[in-house]
Amino acid sequence: MFESAEVGNTLDKLTYREESAKVRAALIQAQRELAGAPFSVVVSVSGLEGAGKSEVVNLLLAWMDARGIETHALDRPTDEERQRPATWRFWRRLPPQGRTAIFFGSWDAGAIYNCVRGKLSRPELDHALDRIVQFERMLNEENTLLVKFWLHLSQRAQKKRLRKLQADPRQKWRVTKRDRKMLEKYDEVRGVSEHLVHRTSTAEAPWIIVEAADRRYRNLTVAKALLAALRERLDVAKSAPPRPRPEPIHLQPAPRNVLNQLDLTLALTEKEYDKRLAEGQADLAVLARRLHEAQRSLILVFEGPDAAGKGGAIRRLTEAIDARDYRVIAIAAPTDEERAHPYLWRFWRHLPGLGRVTIYDRSWYGRVLVERVEGFALEAEWQRAYGEIDAFEEQLTEFGTIVLKFWLAVSPEEQLRRFQEREETPYKQYKITPEDWRNRDRWASYEAAACDTIERTSTEAAPWALVEADNKEWARVKVIETINRRLREALGK
Amino acid sequence: MFESAEVGNTLDKLTYREESAKVRAALIQAQRELAGAPFSVVVSVSGLEGAGKSEVVNLLLAWMDARGIETHALDRPTDEERQRPATWRFWRRLPPQGRTAIFFGSWDAGAIYNCVRGKLSRPELDHALDRIVQFERMLNEENTLLVKFWLHLSQRAQKKRLRKLQADPRQKWRVTKRDRKMLEKYDEVRGVSEHLVHRTSTAEAPWIIVEAADRRYRNLTVAKALLAALRERLDVAKSAPPRPRPEPIHLQPAPRNVLNQLDLTLALTEKEYDKRLAEGQADLAVLARRLHEAQRSLILVFEGPDAAGKGGAIRRLTEAIDARDYRVIAIAAPTDEERAHPYLWRFWRHLPGLGRVTIYDRSWYGRVLVERVEGFALEAEWQRAYGEIDAFEEQLTEFGTIVLKFWLAVSPEEQLRRFQEREETPYKQYKITPEDWRNRDRWASYEAAACDTIERTSTEAAPWALVEADNKEWARVKVIETINRRLREALGK
Repeated sequence: MFESAEVGNTLDKLTYREESAKVRAALIQAQRELAGAPFSVVVSVSGLEGAGKSEVVNLLLAWMDARGIETHALDRPTDEERQRPATWRFWRRLPPQGRTAIFFGSWDAGAIYNCVRGKLSRPELDHALDRIVQFERMLNEENTLLVKFWLHLSQRAQKKRLRKLQADPRQKWRVTKRDRKMLEKYDEVRGVSEHLVHRTSTAEAPWIIVEAADRRYRNLTVAKALLAALRERLDVAKSAPPRPRPEPIHLQPAPRNVLNQLDLTLALTEKEYDKRLAEGQADLAVLARRLHEAQRSLILVFEGPDAAGKGGAIRRLTEAIDARDYRVIAIAAPTDEERAHPYLWRFWRHLPGLGRVTIYDRSWYGRVLVERVEGFALEAEWQRAYGEIDAFEEQLTEFGTIVLKFWLAVSPEEQLRRFQEREETPYKQYKITPEDWRNRDRWASYEAAACDTIERTSTEAAPWALVEADNKEWARVKVIETINRRLREALGK
Repeated sequence: MFESAEVGNTLDKLTYREESAKVRAALIQAQRELAGAPFSVVVSVSGLEGAGKSEVVNLLLAWMDARGIETHALDRPTDEERQRPATWRFWRRLPPQGRTAIFFGSWDAGAIYNCVRGKLSRPELDHALDRIVQFERMLNEENTLLVKFWLHLSQRAQKKRLRKLQADPRQKWRVTKRDRKMLEKYDEVRGVSEHLVHRTSTAEAPWIIVEAADRRYRNLTVAKALLAALRERLDVAKSAPPRPRPEPIHLQPAPRNVLNQLDLTLALTEKEYDKRLAEGQADLAVLARRLHEAQRSLILVFEGPDAAGKGGAIRRLTEAIDARDYRVIAIAAPTDEERAHPYLWRFWRHLPGLGRVTIYDRSWYGRVLVERVEGFALEAEWQRAYGEIDAFEEQLTEFGTIVLKFWLAVSPEEQLRRFQEREETPYKQYKITPEDWRNRDRWASYEAAACDTIERTSTEAAPWALVEADNKEWARVKVIETINRRLREALGK
């Protein structure tokens, strides 16, 4: 794979000067068009030590307009980053539409080093690489152009390069002990790198392997390839048909399904409710404290029709948790910064730190529920969302976050009763909007979308709990008791 | 000061029930109006241990709509926070317009404890409190409603409360060793608290002292006070005259001023330029490396007319810095999240971590330059901005950040020449817009605003360097050499 980058490509000064002037003008032009285009650009500059990653990034910054480009060199994760799944640090740095981010190294910075040192096994490496492929596929689908450069050097060229750097007092510091160690293990590094490059080269995001021994050849090759990728995507974007106007779709749920088979008559008497709620809250208070001590995180997701009692259920459980430890995120219309990022970005933003709880009142499931039913998401978008959501939750649970999802089910009759009650109670009026009445007309479609969602996204690690919610008391107690059971399982008796 | 909160206020159950229903409805109503109002709300819940801060926050979350409220309990700063001035952690958590944030404790969490333990002297405390007053004044001016509660308990009441908490297995963990220690030093804690409350009670943001011994009295008092503050500000906002349309102003610079007295004929020959640039870059490379090793941060600000050569000067200096260590932030139109926060928020966002460099291509000075001249900022806004900017930069330099500001001065004739050149050079055309031509017509006003700015904001800690920039080579070398000199001073020979 790397053989083609060890053939001794060079470029003479004159050609370099001529071509670079052209490329530079075209890059600037492309970047200008990008500013108004519906996608973002992520450039990864990776490769062997001494191959000139910094120089390449400096060149790109110099040739393009630094406006709209952010560079990210990720060393050790910060403590805020260590408290969240590994990709969080990338998510928080994703550029918005119209802008470019340059990352030093690939997403798995350090994996090669760890692999060569025997600290990471091949299956572990492969698992990490699969995650990367998944992440990149999502980014690509979500309007991110990925341009990945792998700067390669033959063993001889690397030795020469590092020797030259060491001889230069201004550059000497660049050559670390780690670099020298890696140089001794050139063949192993090359092997693992080849594996990484091979495994993460996909149709959406292929690696561009660049022979880096000759500075001019390297620079121009990188700039030209970036230009070509940008141009292509810009042209595609330009000729893309306009996004169709949202068109609500009509779905029929299965006659017998997980929701309509729920026994919505389940109820608690006031006395039972008081007793079990008090007990449940007392248990939860202790468990939440243990969660904190164990430095585990908890994510609770609440979905269900309007007036299903999500807010009330959330309030009953937050009463038992120290206000310092939880946050309720109510999902409303996205801000423009959120809109300019992949749709999961706004949820990644709010992931809890260790020992904390984030409660999502509505969530990423909006993609396969309201956005699907109202036609805001195209079919291709909500179809792939099941997998994207699955990958998201897997990352959370693998990291040790406890994820629990509640579907609060009410009957159309009970919903109507509650709507009417809300209209009559002054301090509840704000909860009811014309949109709620409109959504109600589309009950069947929402039910069908919900059934699909539950079927496709209830996993062992992040299960849906279906909650019969016509009786609020029943629902609230069931929610708390389910959380408590789950926390006991996760934290040990 | 606290005597009025030790008088034994209580509230009976019936009154509490009746009143709380009313307050609750009104709070919800006020919160709904807030969603569309041009201000944000910051609630601080502070006071003695055991006074029920968590309970009060839980109550507010339960009574209001959790949607739009974020709670922040700030324990120890994270490592990302420790790398920036102390207020950074508050800036990053400020709610946008229309929303509410509740902070546990005041901005100076820990100060009282440290003061009582003798770890913080009174002058140090007072300096911190002055910063807080300054910060709150700015927040208030920038459309943030501050509502600060101080929950107070008499010594007897606190003892009783903590004993009760300790007796409850669910609550026991709340009483820490620190709490017990603080109880022993009740009088000292009370004294320091009184000092803090007194010193940070201002017209814009007074403390509301609440007797917290009786749960019902405490809760209702807090809820009512928050409601009153919200209502008042909402009504003010409603009856406020609409913001006047931006109206460009006309200014005349002094006939002799710091800018027009610059010798713009200063120039370097090509040979001198090449030599001094190379030397300057070599020095800068070493110094930037030392900056990194010393874990100091550097902020460079570039201002000046269009086509003054800011971008070119920045490029020459970034060539000498490892791309991992610097970031260029080009200030363009704010995003809606930025617009919904105090205007300095978008700059705080990008503060460099330790050992890093942030270069602002245009900056917070826009407030007193373009926003003033074009009338986007009202007179009251840009007038107070000088002081706000000063406070901002003081926080940076006190923290150890090195701040350097460059004003690149060109003559109108040279600017015209460059505009024309840009229009003729394909890859520079993007740099010139109709707005540039328009601004050019208003040269005198911009010059006058610039002179005011330089006069009022050049401090010893964060000085302006005026750069004669008709000759680009001269300007670039002067910029680099100035940075190097400053870095040498700061880092030692």
